Amino acid sequence: MAPQVTVDSINARVIECQYAVRGEIVILAQKLRQEIQAKPEAYPFQEILYCNIGNPQSLGQKSITFFREVLALCDHPAILAKSETQALFSADSIERARKILDQIPGRATGAYSHSQGIKGLRDTIAAAIEARDGFPADPNDIFMTDGASPAVHMMMQLLIRSEKDGILCPIPQYPLYSASIALHGGTLVPYYLDEATGWGLEVSELKKQLQEAKSNGITVRALVVINPGNPTGQVLAEENQKAIVEFCKEEGLVLLADEVYQENVYVPEKKFHSFKKVARSMGYGEKDIHLVSFQSVSKGYYGECGKRGGYMEVTGFGADVREHIYKLASVNLCSNITGQILASLVMSPPKVGDKSYESYIAERDGILSSLARRAKTLEDAFNKLEGITCNKAEGAMYLFPRINLPKKAIKAAEEVKTAPDLFYCRRLLNETGIVFVPGSGFGQVPGTWHFRCTILPQEEKIPAIVTRLTDFHKRFMDEFRD
Amino acid sequence: MAPQVTVDSINARVIECQYAVRGEIVILAQKLRQEIQAKPEAYPFQEILYCNIGNPQSLGQKSITFFREVLALCDHPAILAKSETQALFSADSIERARKILDQIPGRATGAYSHSQGIKGLRDTIAAAIEARDGFPADPNDIFMTDGASPAVHMMMQLLIRSEKDGILCPIPQYPLYSASIALHGGTLVPYYLDEATGWGLEVSELKKQLQEAKSNGITVRALVVINPGNPTGQVLAEENQKAIVEFCKEEGLVLLADEVYQENVYVPEKKFHSFKKVARSMGYGEKDIHLVSFQSVSKGYYGECGKRGGYMEVTGFGADVREHIYKLASVNLCSNITGQILASLVMSPPKVGDKSYESYIAERDGILSSLARRAKTLEDAFNKLEGITCNKAEGAMYLFPRINLPKKAIKAAEEVKTAPDLFYCRRLLNETGIVFVPGSGFGQVPGTWHFRCTILPQEEKIPAIVTRLTDFHKRFMDEFRD
Repeated sequence: MAPQVTVDSINARVIECQYAVRGEIVILAQKLRQEIQAKPEAYPFQEILYCNIGNPQSLGQKSITFFREVLALCDHPAILAKSETQALFSADSIERARKILDQIPGRATGAYSHSQGIKGLRDTIAAAIEARDGFPADPNDIFMTDGASPAVHMMMQLLIRSEKDGILCPIPQYPLYSASIALHGGTLVPYYLDEATGWGLEVSELKKQLQEAKSNGITVRALVVINPGNPTGQVLAEENQKAIVEFCKEEGLVLLADEVYQENVYVPEKKFHSFKKVARSMGYGEKDIHLVSFQSVSKGYYGECGKRGGYMEVTGFGADVREHIYKLASVNLCSNITGQILASLVMSPPKVGDKSYESYIAERDGILSSLARRAKTLEDAFNKLEGITCNKAEGAMYLFPRINLPKKAIKAAEEVKTAPDLFYCRRLLNETGIVFVPGSGFGQVPGTWHFRCTILPQEEKIPAIVTRLTDFHKRFMDEFRD
Repeated sequence: MAPQVTVDSINARVIECQYAVRGEIVILAQKLRQEIQAKPEAYPFQEILYCNIGNPQSLGQKSITFFREVLALCDHPAILAKSETQALFSADSIERARKILDQIPGRATGAYSHSQGIKGLRDTIAAAIEARDGFPADPNDIFMTDGASPAVHMMMQLLIRSEKDGILCPIPQYPLYSASIALHGGTLVPYYLDEATGWGLEVSELKKQLQEAKSNGITVRALVVINPGNPTGQVLAEENQKAIVEFCKEEGLVLLADEVYQENVYVPEKKFHSFKKVARSMGYGEKDIHLVSFQSVSKGYYGECGKRGGYMEVTGFGADVREHIYKLASVNLCSNITGQILASLVMSPPKVGDKSYESYIAERDGILSSLARRAKTLEDAFNKLEGITCNKAEGAMYLFPRINLPKKAIKAAEEVKTAPDLFYCRRLLNETGIVFVPGSGFGQVPGTWHFRCTILPQEEKIPAIVTRLTDFHKRFMDEFRD
């Protein structure tokens, strides 16, 4: 008998699930890179310029020294007592590593931890949340996870019972949400961000979509809000957040707050406020609203994507439901300890007076100010291109420009059975080596076309990106202009 | 409106899912530990003796020095060029760290990697599999994962379409399998290991259970084999493995081979053979059988549970199905890089002539020979107890003794609405501080009772465990003997 597993006999949810961030364009980019290495003369460019994924260190961003010192010492504590270690490591990294090791039962960094993560590290994180928000945080509400993705999956798994259960998601959205909802068999209930008002999130739109879902027999269970926005880069105003909290409370929805870009705000007029702080400042406590906040070490100025650290803070659920969340966490035993340690470090970096403080601040601010400059340069460049408009990147790591494609280009795309935005991005990649992700991977108002461009390529490469993009775009428009 | 998420409104699959390894007994143990710390005089023992989970470093097992040296250097490569580093780290760990960093694009250990894991590390692993098996291994077949658990979930997610899809699982089994099948909505089709023949796996039993499942309208999609066994500790004979491969081939089943204990074999008459080696030695290639092998850095002599490293080797699937497995891997972006590096190290440890070779071998063999002694001591102790029989621990980290409970004890358990094995384990814990996991968490032939005991407590603690257990067991039998 021949093997029997074919695409016709696998789980349809898996087939349905899409994940554009690592989809066709990225696979094409990998292929091009190999071809260029083998045959450099085959292409008019010698380098792939990755603007497709929020992966800063892959593009040359340096890790924060203090964080890595502590990780190294926790990985190999045997050197802590050696005199050479004093010469190689900062005094406060040695001190911090000792403190963290003392928080780990048996100082065993190679042991499974408590399913929610090491208690001492959760204490540190809870204290940092308290300091950030000015409201209490409970270490028992923290579930440490391998990045934010497993946390999102866990909540979807908990909430979705069938395709009749819906999750309100922004459009455009980060495709983790659509993928996770598809894999767990639920229904994505879209709400559209308003591009004309800088990707505004209107509660009237939430209400409209909720009513429409209800009339279609969908029980909406939760609302996903990404703040700062991905792929849209907007930062919500506090008043807007209050209205969203009120809406969730009134409708009994779980507020799933993706706050992984909380340290990435680039405009002085905007500030990050956690949804928990907003809810508590309105007087709403545990009994009033289900609220889950996701955080990750992959983002911020640190960008430690490969370490897969993160946590969710889970509030407002009864003890019996909490037990089931705990059980879900324990099926995978625990998240990785290196990621757990790093999550505690990013929430509690060096403080004034610590030996590393000044160098840490210099590293942090160097990265953040450079990101702000890159965002502005790319935004300005997009807005100079024929038929392209681009909102401000107030936060996160992305721009999501809109492209008004000529009819002729749309027709050409249709002829090769390709979405028009994918058609543009594929041409761009093949002709320039620049990798954008087509807007269709994130969702967009039907009939509009976008792409996502990260602000992460190193600053010295930005001019080349702008030049190559501008030249390509002119050629493209000359070919297809109506 | 009050919050609406209650146990009545969450996903029933989550409620159904059980995970005994972190269940009631473990939660009670945590509670006791806190009470002892607060009030040492309240209990007749001052220490909880954890025999419940395969978590060696939590019980004092030391990590392998070479592995941790390399991890520390990869975490903080800035020190590689410093002279003090030569004094603190072995020469071959420095060399290996440099080699690994060269394999990582941009030397960026903080970047997301390829969704399957860093290519150079997969090359190392594939070469190690080839050396182990004597048959080719393809790095493109390796999917690196955060421990083995996410790999198992990924395959269940791929294969299970509805409750009409079944997965053949050994009973007793490791509860990751029952939990994962429950969460993905499939049906666990049990096959019983034969305790009388040292937990023998009989193909006649597989055929019988397959037929019965078919007659109940279940489509059996895969067979899980855990070798060496968990919780049973047996090591399969090569002839037996051949018959299992033949069965899977004939029936078109995916063979899911849990081989995470491949380095834990304690008896000279048994040897680990991977199922892939067995299948290839029978002449069966890619087109003949779907075969997935799971490996983890959590087990073996290294026991690096907290690092969450592992991989699965996926063979025999068509390119189109492989694309969907790749997509599932990419939804979570990648596994943690520290775990990836460690997975490459455990598969490619120091070799003859390397500076660390002798100290590495001494560490490795020290751990393995001690584990073998502990297994034998505990096995002998169990077999001396009234009404208890215990098979040999040929491999893995566990004993799964059978306890013939007196009728009076079973009645007493029923009166407090408790499974009899849980009743015994709870009494044991409350009176001695020893933590076993009741057999009902793993499954057992109805009407038989067992518990799982790890062989992991440090060797100097084994005599105390034996004495306390023996005394308790005598008291228990005196109280309940028929």
